[in-house]
Amino acid sequence: MTVQLVDHNLSDQAVVRAARVSTVGQTHQSPDEAADRETGLINYLMRERHGSPFEHGSLTLYVEAPIFVFREWQRHRIASYNEESARYRELRPAFYLPTVGRNLVQVGKPGSYRFEPGTAEQFSTVDTELVTAYETAYRSYERMLSAGIAREVARAALPVGIYSSMYVTMNPRGLMNFLSLRTHREDAAFVSHPQREIEVCADKAEAIFASLMPATHAAFEANGRVAP
Amino acid sequence: MTVQLVDHNLSDQAVVRAARVSTVGQTHQSPDEAADRETGLINYLMRERHGSPFEHGSLTLYVEAPIFVFREWQRHRIASYNEESARYRELRPAFYLPTVGRNLVQVGKPGSYRFEPGTAEQFSTVDTELVTAYETAYRSYERMLSAGIAREVARAALPVGIYSSMYVTMNPRGLMNFLSLRTHREDAAFVSHPQREIEVCADKAEAIFASLMPATHAAFEANGRVAP
Amino acid sequence: MTVQLVDHNLSDQAVVRAARVSTVGQTHQSPDEAADRETGLINYLMRERHGSPFEHGSLTLYVEAPIFVFREWQRHRIASYNEESARYRELRPAFYLPTVGRNLVQVGKPGSYRFEPGTAEQFSTVDTELVTAYETAYRSYERMLSAGIAREVARAALPVGIYSSMYVTMNPRGLMNFLSLRTHREDAAFVSHPQREIEVCADKAEAIFASLMPATHAAFEANGRVAP
Amino acid sequence: MTVQLVDHNLSDQAVVRAARVSTVGQTHQSPDEAADRETGLINYLMRERHGSPFEHGSLTLYVEAPIFVFREWQRHRIASYNEESARYRELRPAFYLPTVGRNLVQVGKPGSYRFEPGTAEQFSTVDTELVTAYETAYRSYERMLSAGIAREVARAALPVGIYSSMYVTMNPRGLMNFLSLRTHREDAAFVSHPQREIEVCADKAEAIFASLMPATHAAFEANGRVAP
Repeated sequence: MTVQLVDHNLSDQAVVRAARVSTVGQTHQSPDEAADRETGLINYLMRERHGSPFEHGSLTLYVEAPIFVFREWQRHRIASYNEESARYRELRPAFYLPTVGRNLVQVGKPGSYRFEPGTAEQFSTVDTELVTAYETAYRSYERMLSAGIAREVARAALPVGIYSSMYVTMNPRGLMNFLSLRTHREDAAFVSHPQREIEVCADKAEAIFASLMPATHAAFEANGRVAP
Repeated sequence: MTVQLVDHNLSDQAVVRAARVSTVGQTHQSPDEAADRETGLINYLMRERHGSPFEHGSLTLYVEAPIFVFREWQRHRIASYNEESARYRELRPAFYLPTVGRNLVQVGKPGSYRFEPGTAEQFSTVDTELVTAYETAYRSYERMLSAGIAREVARAALPVGIYSSMYVTMNPRGLMNFLSLRTHREDAAFVSHPQREIEVCADKAEAIFASLMPATHAAFEANGRVAP
Repeated sequence: MTVQLVDHNLSDQAVVRAARVSTVGQTHQSPDEAADRETGLINYLMRERHGSPFEHGSLTLYVEAPIFVFREWQRHRIASYNEESARYRELRPAFYLPTVGRNLVQVGKPGSYRFEPGTAEQFSTVDTELVTAYETAYRSYERMLSAGIAREVARAALPVGIYSSMYVTMNPRGLMNFLSLRTHREDAAFVSHPQREIEVCADKAEAIFASLMPATHAAFEANGRVAP
Repeated sequence: MTVQLVDHNLSDQAVVRAARVSTVGQTHQSPDEAADRETGLINYLMRERHGSPFEHGSLTLYVEAPIFVFREWQRHRIASYNEESARYRELRPAFYLPTVGRNLVQVGKPGSYRFEPGTAEQFSTVDTELVTAYETAYRSYERMLSAGIAREVARAALPVGIYSSMYVTMNPRGLMNFLSLRTHREDAAFVSHPQREIEVCADKAEAIFASLMPATHAAFEANGRVAP
């Protein structure tokens, strides 16, 4: 799965600028003082849930992931999406297979599931069955296209494990809400249990976010990973 | 495909009530005059794109359709969704097959596609290939579940032609925007070209809408089917 | 200030219905068991921040309050508004004056303000000065209207303490977010400090909400008054 | 009134990039061909109302305008706002007065208003009355503050003609919707009748937009100024 930075105009300074219009106006201080005050102000805004200063700016990511990941991602409505269209393009035969480290077995009751690795035999079963389903589906797809059938009809055969690609654009506040729900941290104020595959994408998005807005990301971490 | 009315509090009167707070206040007239004035006011609001009076109220539909339809529907962000979860439930083996009347062949260039029925042989190809892909995928899915694999992993094999179910809630304005993009009318001010399957759902949703808000629906029709 | 219920289709059952489509489907039980299970499910959804089941339905309120209250309220974007228009209507001379119990004096530093009642003399000053400003402004407004000036120009003289009226429609999730930010409860997980006047409106809205969705409201209270 | 560009990452290329992921993928051509194709694609997207490619990126403006302008602007919900707070800051005595060229007299019936300049006497009346109302209100405000009254209480006296300031961030699609409703062009497919003061701001915002996304702006103009 791929999550790449495409474009952005994010900065911690944009948060500070937006917040200050509400309150005390511009202050004059040395750069070092300024940096300290910025960190303090951002932390204050996060803690007090003043969310609006975190909306000025946007981040565009290019993502390649299976359709079942996109189905979850695109339920986040404070975001903009453009995705490869199976009506206009013939999809390529690229499919998701779990790799070692992806726990395959779910134990416990609804509301308190845990995952366990699974045996080598279970891993082999997943591999075999997914490859069978994927190959059969894609051959059917190709035969329909060869017979002159419209792509939008033939694609009904394709599994949700097939890879798609999209551009997604979010503002920092929307992104933090996405991260709070689609990452898993035991020490968060609210512990989410995302499906592993979208969690992998969210972790990659978070690394990009942390590099672009270090003070905002630190405040997000320090305040229980709750979107403001 | 199923589109059922579950709950609503829509009415043409709600549009009129909301609009009048902006302007002239309540007027006193006979019921017949009132009905005439309402129709005129609703038509005026639609024509002049005063959209906000069409947002007060909500319509909840229960929908059963293939995943590829839900993928399109859920891109509409001014709406609320709860869908059957393949993480929590084992999906049933119900799959979409085109019926007679679904044109299978796309001709022309991107931006000006047309559809033609296709030959009997093409229809047979679609039927055979989709059934092959569906059956293979579902057997793989079942074997993985039998082997103790988590539902959320096994579902990667399932095709986008499998049926899912959801509740969707929209306000009248959001619904009209959905209808303007997901129905096809040659006489609309803007002629959309939705995929046939979501168009079938949208036509059913429109029939429900027209029965609940007849004056609003008539004004929508009379003004080029452009959402205000 | 007035907050009246105008229309709604809210119910705790709508939350349960929407949530169940995701998970186990309909179950069969006695009415008493059903009620118990509903309460438990709603509490679970609130605690686990499954917010989407709380979006199916809408509540329309009629509100009369000063413009400075509407300025705060209308910053909530997951809501629909129609307000009396000073472009189309001549506004009536109804203005906000603080009543006994409205603390007038702010002490402490930004970020940790407290309010204290103020003296009788301060109360008298507010009364005198507001009445002076209101009367002068309204007389100027009337003189401009009498001179044939457009309402939209003349209204620039009117103070933000003048009353306006609107219809506002929200879904339960949006309403809970509004309540979490615009009410003040010392025992909330996050303690908000709204301006007193919008707090009064929010308390009235909360009483209506609690009567229409008692199990949802109880779960909101039991989970720190954090919108899911 | 002031509308200044603060920050942005807008480009016509971002529209093209987002659109191409849906369709034919990257093509290889000379720079001149590329520019021609971009213009053609952007025009096609605008005409066919493929709106989503116009959402990737954001524009932040700093605006100074009277509160009655902000009241209209902030009703646009697909946008982010941070405004000077009269709870946290003492507002400065800067007020809106119509200048020569602002038509003061409204003629005709609701739904088909026109504006006419007004006489010199009417202009003088507006000037006198607004100054009277503004000065009285601001003196009352200052006396309340001097008496130790909280800013949030004292501000009730202030007129909607007082200047405020805000940062507003929009994506290109949201901005085009704002422009279509808040500018007035006789040759638009849908002719809007905004209040003159917000129109002045919108015209300034449009000039900034046109300079940053010339091909998108040209397509907006060429397609009736309807937001896609």
